[in-house]
Amino acid sequence: MPRKTKDESGRYAYEGLDRVLHEKARLGIMTSLVTRPEGVLFTELKRLCALTDGNLSRHIDVLQDAGLVEAWRGSDGGRPQTLYRLTTEGRGRFVAYLEELEQVVRDALPKAAKKPERAPDLPPGFQPA
Amino acid sequence: MPRKTKDESGRYAYEGLDRVLHEKARLGIMTSLVTRPEGVLFTELKRLCALTDGNLSRHIDVLQDAGLVEAWRGSDGGRPQTLYRLTTEGRGRFVAYLEELEQVVRDALPKAAKKPERAPDLPPGFQPA
Repeated sequence: MPRKTKDESGRYAYEGLDRVLHEKARLGIMTSLVTRPEGVLFTELKRLCALTDGNLSRHIDVLQDAGLVEAWRGSDGGRPQTLYRLTTEGRGRFVAYLEELEQVVRDALPKAAKKPERAPDLPPGFQPA
Repeated sequence: MPRKTKDESGRYAYEGLDRVLHEKARLGIMTSLVTRPEGVLFTELKRLCALTDGNLSRHIDVLQDAGLVEAWRGSDGGRPQTLYRLTTEGRGRFVAYLEELEQVVRDALPKAAKKPERAPDLPPGFQPA
């Protein structure tokens, strides 16, 4: 039988993968904002993340409600614009999340990238389900 | 104004973050399976990922429907058991996903981990939204 791993309870639970951040569109938004501390306009964010207006608004709302992103209103050449930035808390939580992602990559990538010669034998008596 | 990034359309869209895999519980399941190519029993997988029976079943179904995981039935000391393994396709898609995660970490972590002295000035005329 496969080896027992009783001492590894929750080893791959990845509790640090915050559900607010572990979402593809929000991860792109947070990365855009962290690389541009001066702030990013709505229209630029749309382009960087390849999102529609509706999707970007929806995900920004989630991040603002969680206190991770702040919004500022002004204008760019006379047109009303909204500028977004990470909050201090947002940056801190994003660092913690990224460190957990780094752990996932370290746990999995070396094993995944090494192609097995052939599939290991099954335990005796096991059949396709 | 923040600098323009017209040449970076979709820079942070992360199209490689497969939605089947970019889910916390499924990421734990895939990592458990990739580190144990001989297969993992349902009960072990529950423990490694700290999931309930219901949640584990639901997420395994998603992974099986996508062709990433295969199941084998047998018994362990007389009790019926199911053993799970990655399929060849599952391992390949997981590698591609992990490489994209690695890219996210490379894009964001160095910037996020460097605490700014103080918040950069806002463009003139911007007010809290």
